[in-house]
Amino acid sequence: MRLAVVLFEGVTALDAIGPYEVLGSLPGVETVFVGEERGPVRASAGGAGLVVDAALGEVDSADVVVVPGGPGQARQMGGALVEWIRAVDAGSRWTASVCTGSLILAASGVLAGRRAATHWLAGEELERWGVEHAVGERVVFDGKYVTAAGVSAGIDMGLALAGELMGEFGAQMVQLALEYDPAPPFDAGSPEKAPAEVVGLARESRRFLLWEEDRPGWA
Amino acid sequence: MRLAVVLFEGVTALDAIGPYEVLGSLPGVETVFVGEERGPVRASAGGAGLVVDAALGEVDSADVVVVPGGPGQARQMGGALVEWIRAVDAGSRWTASVCTGSLILAASGVLAGRRAATHWLAGEELERWGVEHAVGERVVFDGKYVTAAGVSAGIDMGLALAGELMGEFGAQMVQLALEYDPAPPFDAGSPEKAPAEVVGLARESRRFLLWEEDRPGWA
Repeated sequence: MRLAVVLFEGVTALDAIGPYEVLGSLPGVETVFVGEERGPVRASAGGAGLVVDAALGEVDSADVVVVPGGPGQARQMGGALVEWIRAVDAGSRWTASVCTGSLILAASGVLAGRRAATHWLAGEELERWGVEHAVGERVVFDGKYVTAAGVSAGIDMGLALAGELMGEFGAQMVQLALEYDPAPPFDAGSPEKAPAEVVGLARESRRFLLWEEDRPGWA
Repeated sequence: MRLAVVLFEGVTALDAIGPYEVLGSLPGVETVFVGEERGPVRASAGGAGLVVDAALGEVDSADVVVVPGGPGQARQMGGALVEWIRAVDAGSRWTASVCTGSLILAASGVLAGRRAATHWLAGEELERWGVEHAVGERVVFDGKYVTAAGVSAGIDMGLALAGELMGEFGAQMVQLALEYDPAPPFDAGSPEKAPAEVVGLARESRRFLLWEEDRPGWA
């Protein structure tokens, strides 16, 4: 089974690596990191270099496609990547996204008329593409489309998809191997749970958090 | 503030990228990925390429050092990396590890006589290095040493450390930006919670899960 994980300049590394770590650990899965051209791209946050191993034109099919988001998403809403998604999606078993990766899926047209998750700050943008934002939902299945909310939700999405691909036992094996028994030291992971001043500043910083590579100035 | 994240062949990508995504997102933090030589290393699971941007000899200090684990850890228990850790640790503010990265810290000597977390299958190995395994603990602070349990625990460790570095508000901002409100679809993330047959097979597959790059054969 082939897993294709998309990369691009300004991707959020954890959007890609979360589902990769889960799905790429499953027996029988071969992973390919695909992007505009072979070689490293630079991720958001601190500029992590992630390597594209196959150019888009070198991968014409995949069983599972994962499209991450990140500040670089805004430059991927047309052109080669969305064309590639349309083509590969025609034969995929599952087409998935994390965070603002659902905006790229939306731009490719494959989510038209469907419900999807995205980063909590990107819901309006998603709806402008004719996709219903599943507000407050972390992982959304709609047909063969599986979309995750912001960044870390890709791990939960990966596990849910692992359950579909390999059954509960396989997903549990990976969960235990990754010791995924989360215990966040703070309880601010959603706009419902975070303190109002944190949510307010995140809303003000929205363009920095989602679409610009400049750092937010909140420290 | 400089964050140095160690990479090596056979690293577990999420061990490195989890804390990177949290700590590298903090304002004022500059991240460097450091390893034996510049260029990509290949991670476990599906061979993700992660780029080393500075050779060990090019980085002589860091405020925060993060040492990940992974199947390649076994080849890092002596030599250049442990020497580098000893040297950089002398001036670090925090020295941290994820998963079997604590074994590398142990081999460098900096954890001697301390308590530390590690992957739940690696506790005995950790104790052989004269370090007390904090059984069942996900993130352990002992002085300036911060160690996380297996793989995904690095995200919780990153947030705890973000709280120390920037205060609760800064950590909450990052948590909300990463939408880290985990909701695993299964409850098998620790040996206490996973079904007995899953735990049993993980114990049998221990050398594959932790120390070999071959895939486990449990599917």
